[in-house]
Amino acid sequence: MPSTFNAVDPATGVPGAGYDEASAAEVAAAVDAAQRAFRDPTLRDRDARAALLRGAAARLRNAGDEIVAVAASETGLPEGRLRGELERTAGQLEAFAAVLDAGDFVEAIIDTPDPEAEPIARPDVRRMLVPIGPVAVFGASNFPLAFSTAGGDTASALAAGCPVVVKGHPSHPGTGELVARELQAAVFEAELPDGTFAHLLAAGIEVGEALVDADAIAAVGFTGSTAGGRAIADRAARRPNPIPVYAEMGSINPIVVTEAALAARGDAIADGLVTSVSNFGGQLCTKPGVVFVPDGPVGDEFARAVAARLDAVEPTVLLNERLRDALVAALARLAERAEVRALGSAPAFAGAGYRHQPAAYEAPASAVAEGADLLAEHFGPVVVLLRYAGRDELLAAIAQLEGQLTGSIHAQPSDEADAELVAVLTELLAARAGRIVYDGFPTGVAVTHAMHHGGPYPATSAPAHTSVGMTAIRRFLRPVAWQDAPATVLPPELRDANPLGIWRRVDGELTREPLAV
Amino acid sequence: MPSTFNAVDPATGVPGAGYDEASAAEVAAAVDAAQRAFRDPTLRDRDARAALLRGAAARLRNAGDEIVAVAASETGLPEGRLRGELERTAGQLEAFAAVLDAGDFVEAIIDTPDPEAEPIARPDVRRMLVPIGPVAVFGASNFPLAFSTAGGDTASALAAGCPVVVKGHPSHPGTGELVARELQAAVFEAELPDGTFAHLLAAGIEVGEALVDADAIAAVGFTGSTAGGRAIADRAARRPNPIPVYAEMGSINPIVVTEAALAARGDAIADGLVTSVSNFGGQLCTKPGVVFVPDGPVGDEFARAVAARLDAVEPTVLLNERLRDALVAALARLAERAEVRALGSAPAFAGAGYRHQPAAYEAPASAVAEGADLLAEHFGPVVVLLRYAGRDELLAAIAQLEGQLTGSIHAQPSDEADAELVAVLTELLAARAGRIVYDGFPTGVAVTHAMHHGGPYPATSAPAHTSVGMTAIRRFLRPVAWQDAPATVLPPELRDANPLGIWRRVDGELTREPLAV
Repeated sequence: MPSTFNAVDPATGVPGAGYDEASAAEVAAAVDAAQRAFRDPTLRDRDARAALLRGAAARLRNAGDEIVAVAASETGLPEGRLRGELERTAGQLEAFAAVLDAGDFVEAIIDTPDPEAEPIARPDVRRMLVPIGPVAVFGASNFPLAFSTAGGDTASALAAGCPVVVKGHPSHPGTGELVARELQAAVFEAELPDGTFAHLLAAGIEVGEALVDADAIAAVGFTGSTAGGRAIADRAARRPNPIPVYAEMGSINPIVVTEAALAARGDAIADGLVTSVSNFGGQLCTKPGVVFVPDGPVGDEFARAVAARLDAVEPTVLLNERLRDALVAALARLAERAEVRALGSAPAFAGAGYRHQPAAYEAPASAVAEGADLLAEHFGPVVVLLRYAGRDELLAAIAQLEGQLTGSIHAQPSDEADAELVAVLTELLAARAGRIVYDGFPTGVAVTHAMHHGGPYPATSAPAHTSVGMTAIRRFLRPVAWQDAPATVLPPELRDANPLGIWRRVDGELTREPLAV
Repeated sequence: MPSTFNAVDPATGVPGAGYDEASAAEVAAAVDAAQRAFRDPTLRDRDARAALLRGAAARLRNAGDEIVAVAASETGLPEGRLRGELERTAGQLEAFAAVLDAGDFVEAIIDTPDPEAEPIARPDVRRMLVPIGPVAVFGASNFPLAFSTAGGDTASALAAGCPVVVKGHPSHPGTGELVARELQAAVFEAELPDGTFAHLLAAGIEVGEALVDADAIAAVGFTGSTAGGRAIADRAARRPNPIPVYAEMGSINPIVVTEAALAARGDAIADGLVTSVSNFGGQLCTKPGVVFVPDGPVGDEFARAVAARLDAVEPTVLLNERLRDALVAALARLAERAEVRALGSAPAFAGAGYRHQPAAYEAPASAVAEGADLLAEHFGPVVVLLRYAGRDELLAAIAQLEGQLTGSIHAQPSDEADAELVAVLTELLAARAGRIVYDGFPTGVAVTHAMHHGGPYPATSAPAHTSVGMTAIRRFLRPVAWQDAPATVLPPELRDANPLGIWRRVDGELTREPLAV
């Protein structure tokens, strides 16, 4: 008998449908099928993969009403957000199809031979990126569509040519099953092997552990907590043959606001911040967790404005009981600190479901520089305002930051001191964060070529890579070089004629021309 | 009192000069200086870094006689090889300087804003690669110049803008000190911070462990044994903040020869193989360790030819006593196996120094498919010929291979069965190896744009990366995105005008044009 678990509507706390935990045999079968699919030449056909991605996008849109309804009941996220997320998810799949059309993601490089080269003759060497192998993807709770079953990890791995085995998040099992149904149908319609995609449900950790341990799994994509990502990375590092883990984990996404910026547009910044902190229960990887606010009356007024606006927000539904309990416990620890003050009234919510009142806390930035652990992530609609007495105190606190997904600066460029400070902060933040946002908020990550959603540990386990944007495909590729290969065995991307018309680096120069022979 | 160790001439076993083991304080000071150098804006000047690399190349060439003489006395490698390696080392430094001149290694990507984009407005996002931070490099014993103090890891990390702290290999301490002297002088002449480069000597493991543990170290480059690389990767994975380890480790570099190829040019293949196996004591990362040879008289004749040629080679000097002892012990274990037969006479060498007779062994390929561990790396002038009874037995044995740096195929394209086999072998090898060599030998790795010197574990700890060739710089870079940034804080690579004239991906298209504004 398989063990089962239930979906729960976090808005009410009422259990919904039951789901079977995937068995060890099902995990093994999914991995075996993925391995067979990986060896199947049809998965190497980039047109077939593009058709899969576009087919999946179309199917998700067609099933949108059904998916959004189930997702809303499992996550408490509002319909508008889920419709936007569904469109984003479909758009991501299509964007990676376009990457396949363009074809130069393989980074083809050709060096023509030079028999006269010193100290040794130079052979004909042609290199491109090939898929790394079957990929295990761990769905995230906070984006039931865009970072889950058919989310960015799955889309980029499939685009790369890697079969995907998803460990669906137990917080939205019905959503995952619906999305998987559409993705599997798209696999069938694209005439790709069954093992191209599998979806395993589990509330316990055994399924995930078995996936990370599976010999045929060549890489892991994960979005979630630092503790969860670190456990997976550690486990993968202990394999007989360690594999890369691309875990996008914790971040407090610091924001700096200057006095000049507050004086010029404090209300607008407060409005933007409150939206960024409280929207969707503040359960975004890029939710601002700390804001550096100047001491003095202008900063005081800003702090009051933020607190009042957060007070006025209705208690928001959190994704599940565990996250709600974790937030309550973390805030209790925070509030116990002598240097921390709760702003606003922020009553504990005692009604149905797993809700929390958006809230702000305040502490002196100097406490950070002195080593107080005020820089923990609070996953939920909560922000800590760190008050700084001047430039030095601000910079000393920023220097204490660990790796972050983002860092943001609200300043007044017309102010000379601010202009200089922005340059200094840019340096400091670029050394610690993956993305720097100017006069804006880090939530709402655009899915574009240039987007970087990553950062040094603990923001991610792989600082050289991104989990959002078109370069996310690079995580699931590895280079292979063919030396003095007969034309018949070369992939089309590396043939003299450049039949795909892709950009290639030939003898050091980028070109789309065929090789002169 | 520091502990000391001695250089040893492996041709005689006679100890030479003594060297002090770096102290814990020296390690800490080098890391601190590297961290300060990393924060110094001068290291971000790519022209200054190019000047450093070119200056180092010129200085190494100028000091070539001195360096080669010391290296010969410490490694037993012949002068001609060391002169070639010195030129290769200088050439690598210059090649990375050219990468800096071209400038597009930063992979600049710009997405212009689109306020109408759905589901959310698209900001201005500009992304490029920035240096990851101070890098620890572990010098290799087998390439005292090209993979050591100023070798490929150092050259690519410096090119990336990362200060380097080298843990010099104790098998060639004097060589390392000379090379470090020249590199440090080049740092001075390029007016870069002192901490840009440091060289620490140690015979024990404590210095390396302290480097891997140092909080300011952001990545590790290593070339050496699987055991050594794995220990470093494991240690880095246990840090509070894990960092990437780029370890290039073990490989048996399998070669397949077909009966048709042997019939057509068996003598030439035997000549090439014997050179590839025995040159420089067979102590190359890409030395062929196993060759799949067909059963039957043509294969028998080839095996006899290889064994006779290896017998005729003089015993070669190995790099040090430890490697010699390890090889002798491993071969004793190999020869004990019932399925293994020593070919040729291969007498044990009993004279001065650490020498070993080049030698071949033979075993049935079927033993591999049946699980016998015949696929261990033997670091030295030794090759195992695995005799296969036909296509199926060959392919079954190939399927047992772990990750490899290289795989090579000697076939006869005019033979129809061979042509088909080459296609199948290409698939199998591309799934397991980083480079596939056709009708050639894997030793003598060209340093070019397209070269890939890497592969799945245990060939490396990072299958997405290479330690040779121009893309090796990618290991020491990470992306950063600037969102809606004022022009004043953007790096030149991302400014509208494209002042450096580099290739950039703008709204998905590669171009060197300025941004239309």
